[in-house]
Amino acid sequence: MPAPQEPQPDSHPLSGDPVFDLHRGGKLRTVSTAELTGPEDLSLAYTPGVARVCEAIAADPTMTRHYTWVPRVVAVVTDGTAVLGLGDIGPSAAMPVMEGKAVLFKQFGGVDAVPICLATTDTDEIIETVERLAPSFGGINLEDISAPRCFEIEDRLKERLDIPVFHDDQHGTAVVALAALTNALRLTGRTPATTRVVISGAGAAGVAVAKILREAGITDLAVTDRKGVLHSSRTDLTPVKRALAEITADQSGRRGTLADVLVGADVYIGVSGGTVPEEQVATMADDAIVFGLANPTPEVHPDVARRHARVVATGRSDFPNQINNVLAFPGIFAGAFDAHASAITEGMKLAAARALADLVGDDLSEEMVIPSPFDPRVGPAVRAAVAGAALADGVARLEGAAPADQ
Amino acid sequence: MPAPQEPQPDSHPLSGDPVFDLHRGGKLRTVSTAELTGPEDLSLAYTPGVARVCEAIAADPTMTRHYTWVPRVVAVVTDGTAVLGLGDIGPSAAMPVMEGKAVLFKQFGGVDAVPICLATTDTDEIIETVERLAPSFGGINLEDISAPRCFEIEDRLKERLDIPVFHDDQHGTAVVALAALTNALRLTGRTPATTRVVISGAGAAGVAVAKILREAGITDLAVTDRKGVLHSSRTDLTPVKRALAEITADQSGRRGTLADVLVGADVYIGVSGGTVPEEQVATMADDAIVFGLANPTPEVHPDVARRHARVVATGRSDFPNQINNVLAFPGIFAGAFDAHASAITEGMKLAAARALADLVGDDLSEEMVIPSPFDPRVGPAVRAAVAGAALADGVARLEGAAPADQ
Repeated sequence: MPAPQEPQPDSHPLSGDPVFDLHRGGKLRTVSTAELTGPEDLSLAYTPGVARVCEAIAADPTMTRHYTWVPRVVAVVTDGTAVLGLGDIGPSAAMPVMEGKAVLFKQFGGVDAVPICLATTDTDEIIETVERLAPSFGGINLEDISAPRCFEIEDRLKERLDIPVFHDDQHGTAVVALAALTNALRLTGRTPATTRVVISGAGAAGVAVAKILREAGITDLAVTDRKGVLHSSRTDLTPVKRALAEITADQSGRRGTLADVLVGADVYIGVSGGTVPEEQVATMADDAIVFGLANPTPEVHPDVARRHARVVATGRSDFPNQINNVLAFPGIFAGAFDAHASAITEGMKLAAARALADLVGDDLSEEMVIPSPFDPRVGPAVRAAVAGAALADGVARLEGAAPADQ
Repeated sequence: MPAPQEPQPDSHPLSGDPVFDLHRGGKLRTVSTAELTGPEDLSLAYTPGVARVCEAIAADPTMTRHYTWVPRVVAVVTDGTAVLGLGDIGPSAAMPVMEGKAVLFKQFGGVDAVPICLATTDTDEIIETVERLAPSFGGINLEDISAPRCFEIEDRLKERLDIPVFHDDQHGTAVVALAALTNALRLTGRTPATTRVVISGAGAAGVAVAKILREAGITDLAVTDRKGVLHSSRTDLTPVKRALAEITADQSGRRGTLADVLVGADVYIGVSGGTVPEEQVATMADDAIVFGLANPTPEVHPDVARRHARVVATGRSDFPNQINNVLAFPGIFAGAFDAHASAITEGMKLAAARALADLVGDDLSEEMVIPSPFDPRVGPAVRAAVAGAALADGVARLEGAAPADQ
């Protein structure tokens, strides 16, 4: 039987524009792995044969892992409130980004993914909706949900679900930033314990970057918002910022404005979308490290940063050292799925960062502290490291099997 | 860049069994329509290019139709309460059927589909969950949700959503049964207005079959449950059965047991899962028509039915005249999507049934009142008829464009 013609979108309004031409009709399709050439195939893949598979799962829920697509498909879930730099544009307008994320999951990790854009921004409703969807998916990638709701949504879903839940805007950025910073410290002869780091921006990425740097052994940390360094003596802090102050400046003792704490700092990581004047960058330590991660406009333009810093990274593909989440999330979910992991642990994130950093190897230089997203070793290396860490952390559910070979 | 190896399921417990071998690792995958070979592709399909597509949709929500997969993807939604003949086996055990449905949507209609198995059986929760998911999908196919909740869920979702909502257990069965009956009436020289029909079973399929037969002009109808014919003088009827009585035996005046009303009846349609003894079938009119649609055990075995009836149909693939929903739902959604229809109307269902019946053409015989699911004309014919009916019924949203060519 020939394949039927698929429904076609109408001729599209913005043809001739390469971005819109590429998006015509969307970027995703579903395909069947079972070819049905006649009634016999139908009786295996659908009734009556399929009933036996249903009965096997009803009798033993772990059979889901073997006989459905559930254990290898991620839901990419958003409410459309913090999409790229566009802000709260709603669930329908967020779809092209979520489809794009699904495309990246597949291409860079071999992971199937379904975009889910929700028509609610209520924290409780988002949580209960994802809980109800959970039997359909092997993992949940939260995406572009605004702070501070994103923290509570992730925390509560992690408590309630026994599948990986991962807020990529936090942890994807944190993993890749840590990998790049690890190599930048190697290059400049620093150790985590003696490195002084300033982070501007206390949103989703800032919180996660500060946490993962602490886990990696960096203790001299200061995080700033528009009013300066977060510390517990401030009376204007949200609960999230207060908790962040407690693990950063409350311990390092740093106080003052961003300009104050940049003086003599070894590392600046911008996840704020603000701008740092050149004269402040100039006050940093020798061999400074500057990551301006705001997109599309870094906090410090790389041409400016390079006049004062030895290692410069951005979120952009048109400068060296791109801190791109796509280096992390596809391999992290692929590795978690290999291990049938019940969660993504801190150990799995650290393992992913280490694997990314190690891939640079002898190519390490000021222009190369992180691999390219198109380096074909990236996905497999992150995947293997994450699966191994899942085993080590006791969250793998393998029934004695080893993770799949690379 | 080579495609990464996809995560593999563990070696599977039931290998060697063809049903389980086929189901290993599930039956679905997602694929990208955008190949990303380098940073330039990434900047079109993802940041920064994708932001322009998001902005276009935020400014004009109809752009969703052109630049996302939403207008061509169906959610196949269940709560796992009425799966095949297995009953309430829960959402996880229902997944193989929902994946199978998605496979059929693709193969027979070119329609992308995502299985969604919900961890709730509460009517209100199912409705609110589907409403929240709606921005992600172009249509909702409800599946294997037990009666009577299925009626309320479909009705309320149709009121609230402006995309097609279709409960296939009801309407798919009804469309295909009407198509087969249309040809059986042609073959036996009957007209709808003078045909007497008995339906056993007042669940999802029975309700929908009775309704569509009325819309097709058949007025002498009786529907039975275990206690006999439904009529409004009975005090034990649910609201759904009472409404059904009002459009069937309240008007035809039929009363009594199934055995009583079968005497002299032209048509018997079984959607009950019960059994009709041969001696009752023998009391039907000459040139009787018997559809025993329970699966896998028809209400009347076809070998028995053929001793007393001229046209016999079942739900099984191993006898002639298989009443199989796959003849209807893929083309119905494909046609609705071509028209960007806001709903699936009664006119669209009737058009689908007519198109199916007409395909049999000169091949019409006692053994051929309905085409084979593997007849390649089926999907395109249903699709074209449904798109045309959407236009005629005023539910198409085409901005002046015609439905896609076949």
